[in-house]
Amino acid sequence: MKKIGIADTTFSRFDMASTAIKELRMLSSSISIVRYTVPGVKDLPVSCKKLFEEKGCDIVMALGMPGPEQIDKQCAHEASMGLISVQLMCNKHIIEVFVHEDEAKNDKELSFLAENRTREHAQNVIDLLFHQDKLQKYAGKGLRQGFVDAGPVDV
Amino acid sequence: MKKIGIADTTFSRFDMASTAIKELRMLSSSISIVRYTVPGVKDLPVSCKKLFEEKGCDIVMALGMPGPEQIDKQCAHEASMGLISVQLMCNKHIIEVFVHEDEAKNDKELSFLAENRTREHAQNVIDLLFHQDKLQKYAGKGLRQGFVDAGPVDV
Amino acid sequence: MKKIGIADTTFSRFDMASTAIKELRMLSSSISIVRYTVPGVKDLPVSCKKLFEEKGCDIVMALGMPGPEQIDKQCAHEASMGLISVQLMCNKHIIEVFVHEDEAKNDKELSFLAENRTREHAQNVIDLLFHQDKLQKYAGKGLRQGFVDAGPVDV
Amino acid sequence: MKKIGIADTTFSRFDMASTAIKELRMLSSSISIVRYTVPGVKDLPVSCKKLFEEKGCDIVMALGMPGPEQIDKQCAHEASMGLISVQLMCNKHIIEVFVHEDEAKNDKELSFLAENRTREHAQNVIDLLFHQDKLQKYAGKGLRQGFVDAGPVDV
Amino acid sequence: MKKIGIADTTFSRFDMASTAIKELRMLSSSISIVRYTVPGVKDLPVSCKKLFEEKGCDIVMALGMPGPEQIDKQCAHEASMGLISVQLMCNKHIIEVFVHEDEAKNDKELSFLAENRTREHAQNVIDLLFHQDKLQKYAGKGLRQGFVDAGPVDV
Repeated sequence: MKKIGIADTTFSRFDMASTAIKELRMLSSSISIVRYTVPGVKDLPVSCKKLFEEKGCDIVMALGMPGPEQIDKQCAHEASMGLISVQLMCNKHIIEVFVHEDEAKNDKELSFLAENRTREHAQNVIDLLFHQDKLQKYAGKGLRQGFVDAGPVDV
Repeated sequence: MKKIGIADTTFSRFDMASTAIKELRMLSSSISIVRYTVPGVKDLPVSCKKLFEEKGCDIVMALGMPGPEQIDKQCAHEASMGLISVQLMCNKHIIEVFVHEDEAKNDKELSFLAENRTREHAQNVIDLLFHQDKLQKYAGKGLRQGFVDAGPVDV
Repeated sequence: MKKIGIADTTFSRFDMASTAIKELRMLSSSISIVRYTVPGVKDLPVSCKKLFEEKGCDIVMALGMPGPEQIDKQCAHEASMGLISVQLMCNKHIIEVFVHEDEAKNDKELSFLAENRTREHAQNVIDLLFHQDKLQKYAGKGLRQGFVDAGPVDV
Repeated sequence: MKKIGIADTTFSRFDMASTAIKELRMLSSSISIVRYTVPGVKDLPVSCKKLFEEKGCDIVMALGMPGPEQIDKQCAHEASMGLISVQLMCNKHIIEVFVHEDEAKNDKELSFLAENRTREHAQNVIDLLFHQDKLQKYAGKGLRQGFVDAGPVDV
Repeated sequence: MKKIGIADTTFSRFDMASTAIKELRMLSSSISIVRYTVPGVKDLPVSCKKLFEEKGCDIVMALGMPGPEQIDKQCAHEASMGLISVQLMCNKHIIEVFVHEDEAKNDKELSFLAENRTREHAQNVIDLLFHQDKLQKYAGKGLRQGFVDAGPVDV
């Protein structure tokens, strides 16, 4: 039985946490889930640390949707640096699932991308917890989350 | 009874702290407030750490108004990185309320933006302290502080 | 009696430390001063840490004059990040007084700017040590060090 | 007998870990190898820390292939900062082997580059572990991994 | 008797360590020297930490020659951030001597620059160890290492 933390934001324009929770529950019955919603991506690092230290999570998904402006890119960078720090402080993985608004051409594609990237990273979470061998099998295969895989260079 | 720290600056061109304090008092009577004013945004991280460790605050609002120049953006970035570090050191939230001078077309809009963003983040502070469920209800709703909400992508 | 550290550089083209020391002595007789000169701004963070931990300073002024090139901006950024880290490690303020060479049109203005910014930040140091209330009085007033104040937005 | 950690990704379009393991085994019989595959480069820092602290590795190779977009550069930068932090936390070397997709003109060159850089850095790992003197012999020689050496400036 | 660490790279196109060692020995007979060569500048931070903690050095020179590409600038930035972290962890100075390849017009000038900057920073190392007063005498004098001094602004 493993405990998975889900940290998400009210800033995001898509409810990535609900997608993540549904997918995780489908992928494994040996998990429990704790959710923690905060305003924006810069609030995620300490939320993840709390999920590890106060809620006893084994791994956390950090879900966010940075806006299209330069300042949003900056915020996402700061959040990412913080998420890496938390992982090093806690010796546990945080799977960052950020969908940048300008990755998609329109709302429909953004919705599709947010859902798919979240689902594919939920699989990564399960693999890190239970199936490390499976990740190794896909090493160097050019996997991408949300869009089509880039594929290996030597095919 | 929760203690809220307010860190603000003499650099800012709007007294965001007074707005924050007024709004917080209106939103809850179960709080006490400690205010700490410093020269600029780069002085905020250690101020927030002092508010946590020397004043016993449960959460802090870090209020600042970076100028429009490239160097000001740099300072804001450095401050933000520091604010994230403090949160990880103290396992407590800092709600950063930065209003960039060039987000507004003129002084009137800047004033409006500073007041509204501060007020809306004061609500976030109260929700993080007392109503975590409410934040979860708005997860993925594309909330924005100060300007109009972006709204959810799938409406 | 408070102990103030002054960290400065041989890289700077103006002796900001002498200005700082003169101004601090004029502003208060309840202080002692320790000075530590290093080659450049990237040597300032550890100097400030030593001033806190080995010399027992209560606050430090970090004085530097980054050059006009891109690499100088980078150095200043790295120094600033380090100065914030030191403050968080020591729970004490460092007032960073950096004058970028390209802020001034010519040597005369650069000299004027370095002197004035240093003096006005010396006042901030004294206020942080002895007159926290005074800083609060000027919160949101758009104060600037070296050039003319921006002033509050709502006047 | 030394233990070498290999951290690699499913994002990479080339199986750098297999190349590294083959080369390391050819270069020394006094080593054991532990491999840890994760989704992307931002997952590498904590993986390396786990390889040091949970698996007892003496040194780690962090293998990754950042994509060509600006966001990929950002991710690589964040990963690199994290890898340096891990080294300072553990007092052990991580040899970062990153191949940026846009360093190569086409897939064939990318494959060639990924293989050669990995192999030449495997040699560095062995030298850091067993032949520090050899590295010193090549100090200032303008060595490059993957492409042709730049060579010393004074020849 | 003080112990000086020299960390250098095989990436550099000039043997800065030999220059540093020769100059240091000429400047003082009260020193011993430990040298540690690594592949590139991003390997320098942990090398310096090891020189402090495992070899007992009192100060370290970190010598490197970043290449002319954007990625090289990025690596140098990451290395510099790491070098500052090490100093704060160890409360000891690291004198960073980085010569960017594109600072010089050709190989001859690059060689000249690398030698001179290294020698002038060797002097800084000796002054930090033994003659702090001398550095103070040159405070604000616009000293530069490698090229001609900028000089003080007020002459």
